[in-house]
Amino acid sequence: MTTQIIDSGQVEQHNASQRATLQADYDALGGMLSRRGVDIEALTAKAQTFAVALPSWGVGTGGTRFARFPGKGEPRDVTEKLEDCAVIHQLTRATPTVSLHFPWDKPADPKALRQQADSLGLSFDAVNSNTFQDQPGQAQTYKYGSLTAQSQAAREQAVAHNIDCIELGKTLGSKGLTVWVGDGANFPGQHNLRGALERYLDSAKGIYAALPDDWLMYIEHKLFEPAFYCTVIADWGTSFAAAQTLGDKAKCLVDLGHHAPNTNIEMIVARLAQFGKLGGFHFNDSKYGDDDLDSGSIDPFQLFLVFNELADATLRDGTFKPAYMLDQSHNVTDPIESLMSSAVEVQRAFVQAALVDRAALAGFQEANDALQSAQALKKAFRTDVSPILAMARLRAGGAADPVAAYRASGYREKVAVKRPPKAGASGSGIV
Amino acid sequence: MTTQIIDSGQVEQHNASQRATLQADYDALGGMLSRRGVDIEALTAKAQTFAVALPSWGVGTGGTRFARFPGKGEPRDVTEKLEDCAVIHQLTRATPTVSLHFPWDKPADPKALRQQADSLGLSFDAVNSNTFQDQPGQAQTYKYGSLTAQSQAAREQAVAHNIDCIELGKTLGSKGLTVWVGDGANFPGQHNLRGALERYLDSAKGIYAALPDDWLMYIEHKLFEPAFYCTVIADWGTSFAAAQTLGDKAKCLVDLGHHAPNTNIEMIVARLAQFGKLGGFHFNDSKYGDDDLDSGSIDPFQLFLVFNELADATLRDGTFKPAYMLDQSHNVTDPIESLMSSAVEVQRAFVQAALVDRAALAGFQEANDALQSAQALKKAFRTDVSPILAMARLRAGGAADPVAAYRASGYREKVAVKRPPKAGASGSGIV
Amino acid sequence: MTTQIIDSGQVEQHNASQRATLQADYDALGGMLSRRGVDIEALTAKAQTFAVALPSWGVGTGGTRFARFPGKGEPRDVTEKLEDCAVIHQLTRATPTVSLHFPWDKPADPKALRQQADSLGLSFDAVNSNTFQDQPGQAQTYKYGSLTAQSQAAREQAVAHNIDCIELGKTLGSKGLTVWVGDGANFPGQHNLRGALERYLDSAKGIYAALPDDWLMYIEHKLFEPAFYCTVIADWGTSFAAAQTLGDKAKCLVDLGHHAPNTNIEMIVARLAQFGKLGGFHFNDSKYGDDDLDSGSIDPFQLFLVFNELADATLRDGTFKPAYMLDQSHNVTDPIESLMSSAVEVQRAFVQAALVDRAALAGFQEANDALQSAQALKKAFRTDVSPILAMARLRAGGAADPVAAYRASGYREKVAVKRPPKAGASGSGIV
Amino acid sequence: MTTQIIDSGQVEQHNASQRATLQADYDALGGMLSRRGVDIEALTAKAQTFAVALPSWGVGTGGTRFARFPGKGEPRDVTEKLEDCAVIHQLTRATPTVSLHFPWDKPADPKALRQQADSLGLSFDAVNSNTFQDQPGQAQTYKYGSLTAQSQAAREQAVAHNIDCIELGKTLGSKGLTVWVGDGANFPGQHNLRGALERYLDSAKGIYAALPDDWLMYIEHKLFEPAFYCTVIADWGTSFAAAQTLGDKAKCLVDLGHHAPNTNIEMIVARLAQFGKLGGFHFNDSKYGDDDLDSGSIDPFQLFLVFNELADATLRDGTFKPAYMLDQSHNVTDPIESLMSSAVEVQRAFVQAALVDRAALAGFQEANDALQSAQALKKAFRTDVSPILAMARLRAGGAADPVAAYRASGYREKVAVKRPPKAGASGSGIV
Repeated sequence: MTTQIIDSGQVEQHNASQRATLQADYDALGGMLSRRGVDIEALTAKAQTFAVALPSWGVGTGGTRFARFPGKGEPRDVTEKLEDCAVIHQLTRATPTVSLHFPWDKPADPKALRQQADSLGLSFDAVNSNTFQDQPGQAQTYKYGSLTAQSQAAREQAVAHNIDCIELGKTLGSKGLTVWVGDGANFPGQHNLRGALERYLDSAKGIYAALPDDWLMYIEHKLFEPAFYCTVIADWGTSFAAAQTLGDKAKCLVDLGHHAPNTNIEMIVARLAQFGKLGGFHFNDSKYGDDDLDSGSIDPFQLFLVFNELADATLRDGTFKPAYMLDQSHNVTDPIESLMSSAVEVQRAFVQAALVDRAALAGFQEANDALQSAQALKKAFRTDVSPILAMARLRAGGAADPVAAYRASGYREKVAVKRPPKAGASGSGIV
Repeated sequence: MTTQIIDSGQVEQHNASQRATLQADYDALGGMLSRRGVDIEALTAKAQTFAVALPSWGVGTGGTRFARFPGKGEPRDVTEKLEDCAVIHQLTRATPTVSLHFPWDKPADPKALRQQADSLGLSFDAVNSNTFQDQPGQAQTYKYGSLTAQSQAAREQAVAHNIDCIELGKTLGSKGLTVWVGDGANFPGQHNLRGALERYLDSAKGIYAALPDDWLMYIEHKLFEPAFYCTVIADWGTSFAAAQTLGDKAKCLVDLGHHAPNTNIEMIVARLAQFGKLGGFHFNDSKYGDDDLDSGSIDPFQLFLVFNELADATLRDGTFKPAYMLDQSHNVTDPIESLMSSAVEVQRAFVQAALVDRAALAGFQEANDALQSAQALKKAFRTDVSPILAMARLRAGGAADPVAAYRASGYREKVAVKRPPKAGASGSGIV
Repeated sequence: MTTQIIDSGQVEQHNASQRATLQADYDALGGMLSRRGVDIEALTAKAQTFAVALPSWGVGTGGTRFARFPGKGEPRDVTEKLEDCAVIHQLTRATPTVSLHFPWDKPADPKALRQQADSLGLSFDAVNSNTFQDQPGQAQTYKYGSLTAQSQAAREQAVAHNIDCIELGKTLGSKGLTVWVGDGANFPGQHNLRGALERYLDSAKGIYAALPDDWLMYIEHKLFEPAFYCTVIADWGTSFAAAQTLGDKAKCLVDLGHHAPNTNIEMIVARLAQFGKLGGFHFNDSKYGDDDLDSGSIDPFQLFLVFNELADATLRDGTFKPAYMLDQSHNVTDPIESLMSSAVEVQRAFVQAALVDRAALAGFQEANDALQSAQALKKAFRTDVSPILAMARLRAGGAADPVAAYRASGYREKVAVKRPPKAGASGSGIV
Repeated sequence: MTTQIIDSGQVEQHNASQRATLQADYDALGGMLSRRGVDIEALTAKAQTFAVALPSWGVGTGGTRFARFPGKGEPRDVTEKLEDCAVIHQLTRATPTVSLHFPWDKPADPKALRQQADSLGLSFDAVNSNTFQDQPGQAQTYKYGSLTAQSQAAREQAVAHNIDCIELGKTLGSKGLTVWVGDGANFPGQHNLRGALERYLDSAKGIYAALPDDWLMYIEHKLFEPAFYCTVIADWGTSFAAAQTLGDKAKCLVDLGHHAPNTNIEMIVARLAQFGKLGGFHFNDSKYGDDDLDSGSIDPFQLFLVFNELADATLRDGTFKPAYMLDQSHNVTDPIESLMSSAVEVQRAFVQAALVDRAALAGFQEANDALQSAQALKKAFRTDVSPILAMARLRAGGAADPVAAYRASGYREKVAVKRPPKAGASGSGIV
């Protein structure tokens, strides 16, 4: 029996206050869709199938190299992070899994952690290794690289840490390991560019060898930061070549903020899907670099176009199922509110993509009717599916308006009392 | 009495076929808005106030430096261009003015041209000069610049051409001159950067001096192309400084595709409005450079954010009224269809911006409630105002679905017969 | 016996006027290098091994979509283009091959063309197909794509044209085919992104099958232009996946201007070399997009870093030999002058890369001495090897200062008389 | 009498070991320059006039939001920072001033600090305020802005802090205040864009009013980070408008890493110089964002082009003298080594710019000879002026090779013993 962190009565009270309006809007939208030949109930059912993982580090306040301005009641350990994640899932019904980051979230008792998650109705998504920071007492520094370090001892330490993450993940019920390394160089010449990738591949083979048969290894590329001249896995081409080198269980992970300016990200999605290497996503939004802003807050049409590709790929292969995760830095908002809103935004794009009339679209494309092809997508994107998303939540036991229900619950104020600020919280792995 | 190029009966027949569905959708949306405290009729009335100018060159098929693939029935002179513009306005009721480009559109008889426009229900927006191409028989080349040329004779020729444009514009009833120059350099060192701007300002003063009191001079900046190392008016800062130097009748014109990657364009809009120098817009969309794609086709949220700033500026100053124009290159679509769709997309952003609850937004901003501030904009943007736009057209005598009505009319097929292709059409000024 | 287009006496006279100064500078540099333990004679010999192909279209004046400002004495056919190329090679001794573009350069008598080239001391590099323009009388249009077109007939026509190019190339002595397609879309939705690449691969297989055993097929990617929303081969990742799909004779071609902003191009070079797919280069420079500026004119250090990777790759594999070509658009300079200067700039980067002390560099890298690693490259880059390049030319029978010798020869004035301007020259394939 | 932190004997010993080679290289270069009509002695004298300020925070190891990997012997307070700066100046003779950052460097006894600086041969450049971080015990948070905050109390606190900085600067002998604020928004809607700038200007007027007559206020713009949707002073246009609004003592400061991708920075330099608002520079280099890499390490030609504009501006106005400062983050190098190398790189660009034959360049520009104009700059840039820079140092009492002399001195090892690491050093203001 799942523990509800927010009192169910409060949620029901909130929903009761919204229900009539929601139903009226839902019916109005249903009528409009019906006149377009679309069954709203099918869409609502589809919406209920959506799920996106939460990043454990996302429930803390993020920061920049300049400053971090802590919020109230930030979780101080993995147990409290899970509680916050449970709130998000309780109200959105769209985030049943949590992605942990080690050693930040390393539990003293992994089985107890799994039990806590289970009691909260949560389970564990891919685990993340961390070889971009030095931990107190660590034998080898990663200042000059981890999987690519010149120092064999540093490389071995980094490989061993990844294998530890796999072991921990097995206990927790995870089925994947996400490997992101910040390894790179700040100066032309600092790295032998090819040598660095050779060392990466050699190290990655060591990790891959430890991967259980039913696990996937997600390789995450990023153009820049923390390295500012070059990064060893800087683009999807390198990620793809690395995944090919490693084997079938190695897949590419696409973070929406890790690309060069002007990059057509939905085309990368299509390419990786076509060549069988699309593993999953870190969703967020950005205007400049790896800004880690809330999903859909800057370019919602791009998010829709990504899901349009995913819908196309699913149509071609019913077994296609990449991993979805939010990966955001919440610097000026309550992280729980941002994660709830963002889960809904991603779900929105998922439902809008389902609205595309694919037969008509294919016909327009076949006829070189660029204008109507474009309109076929825009028509779906323009549809305000908010009532569908709200109804899907309501039917699944969530909140009609998660942010409003959350604010009404007083949760933040309560944990602010229970969780006094930690000194030096930046050391807790919240970036 | 306005001549209707598309048979009115055909338009009415089209509308008749759409009316019931439209009314039902309009009512459904009206109900949803009413539950949010918004009066749909006020919005529809607002929509009817919207107007955006058509670029005469936009009704021909565009091209790139690599190729131009002509369409059928392209207009061969300014008279035929006006006919196409009249079709667009007839069906959308949102494009009552046309912006001409000289010498491309130089009429043999300006008064007759004005009469033609008048008979079609059109009038003339700002006129555009062209000193980025050499015309047959021209005394001085613009190969090395026009308003900034080292050659005094070339500069004088360019100034004189602009003054000719003003004279022509007076006869046509225009009230503005848009000055875009491609002047710049392809090599570091080719220009003395400051010397080039000094010559520009000196030339521009000559043009400004010829401007009637009730005219505006629009200075259009552009980051690059046709010059590839530097452009004399490359950014809004230079445009702004130039407009300041010239005087009150000089304003800055913002083309959405003329900025560096990642630029926050809506902030430029806010800055120019604040400092009293926002003259107007060339609307289009782009993903990479000055792609001149259909407005709202790539980043519709950005277009909305631009109109959000315009709404804010209007709230602060009721007399604020920048000039709106479409400026697009239609390479793979029927230009009439693209211009109709684009006018509607810009109008959509205008109406969505009107939907923003500004009092609530200001309250969220005051309270540093970043999440709800963002949602206040997203809520307006997400609203599918299509029924409002269609109803506004219907009530103004346009078409419920302009593209469908246009296709049903057979206009393109008819002009394809009447207008056989010209050889070397790239010389006709369609870029 | 090679025909010298510029009178040898004139070149000798030029060289005589420069020799004393050059020898003094060469000796001074030789002393400086000797104090660094470097033998100038070895570098001069190395410089003499350098060769880069000329693009036949590069000897005409280029233009933009806005205008083309023709130069004097532009070549009017492939015969005249070869003459201009011969001048460039005569004076630089660095450009012994020419890359033709069909149908622009399609010869009436291929054997005669080969003889002309031979008599001028030139031979033919890779041939280029053109499916981004429609030719008069062509059955199928490429308006909506060529190798990726929805129309099977258009695809077949494009494949057949490429096979024709191969046949022509065989007669001319070429050993490679460069395939660049502008295929893409201007609107989200216009293409099914995956379907377009599937059609591309299917078409490319048809071309690949016609490739002689000793030929290579060069796949050239480009981020954007002429398509402005997406391009089928937009990045090195797609190019790489396509080359893998086709087979060993398919390689990737890197044009320095075809990447997203901020891309680390030298890393792409390293990646393609590592995975065995680096076929060659189109050299030019750019600040914004595919600006096609003179090589090394905007970011000479980047050009050096590219050659630094090539030197590293050659060290690892002595047989590594990618194809080098210039690909530039000369809008404001005499194309012959720009191509001569650019060949020298690329050769400069080649020689500077040879100056890197690779053993010392490897030591600094091994020691994580980022500062000295960087300085090891900068030291080589900073060395002004101009006297080496001039001496290499002098010893090979070229000109000490190619541009000065060319200007002194009066070549341009002579051909300006012999080659009156063609009307509508933009139709001659010069972009 | 200036205290020499590195033993003078050690420096002399180092110089003695280099002198013969340097003299030979200097003579060889002198001969080459003489054959070009250039007097090497004039250049060496010019080089000796160069000075660039050091940022106090630059002598500590920098970091990213992901991690900071401390170096050995990092300075723990402003006194130790001054010692490190003195080493840099002793060996390079190019960095006589230090720019302090408050409250990071707030001295207990400002007069004593000034005496320490004086004894080390240093003085103080512009002081920097910090309103982008919260300090322990601070009354108002800057989480939602400082000079632009909605909270009047926060704005007043930020203004008061800036005025404190001025007061402190007066005691220290500074003549300028640099104001950089990270204020901005992470979401569209979070800010009223115009309202935020209005508040900024209002706050800035309060600071400006406290500025002594012989001081300048430097306004520093930045595209993004720490705010990721918009920044209040995001571009030079806004900086320029703000400086105009404030008055003659307000000038614009250009940081090379604070621009949109592809921006032509040297043109911004020319524009600000032309309109009388160029105040100074923060030198560094970058490939992606505000990477804060070593000056000249990524794009040395751009640095040269900036100095080419400065040379042009100086030619036009002999009194033109913007402030130069290094502003870099040293994450993988010894900060002292990076700052020494970077000072030399900036000085190199200064000397190379002095080598441009401006009369010849003007002639080429006048004649529209783009190729030779470009070559006139490239010729100066290509000249390896290293012997001039070394000789200038030697004559001024510095080190022929500052990095080699520094390493030989054992300074870092000595301070590593004297300065054990502080816990939580990221709190010391090193970013």
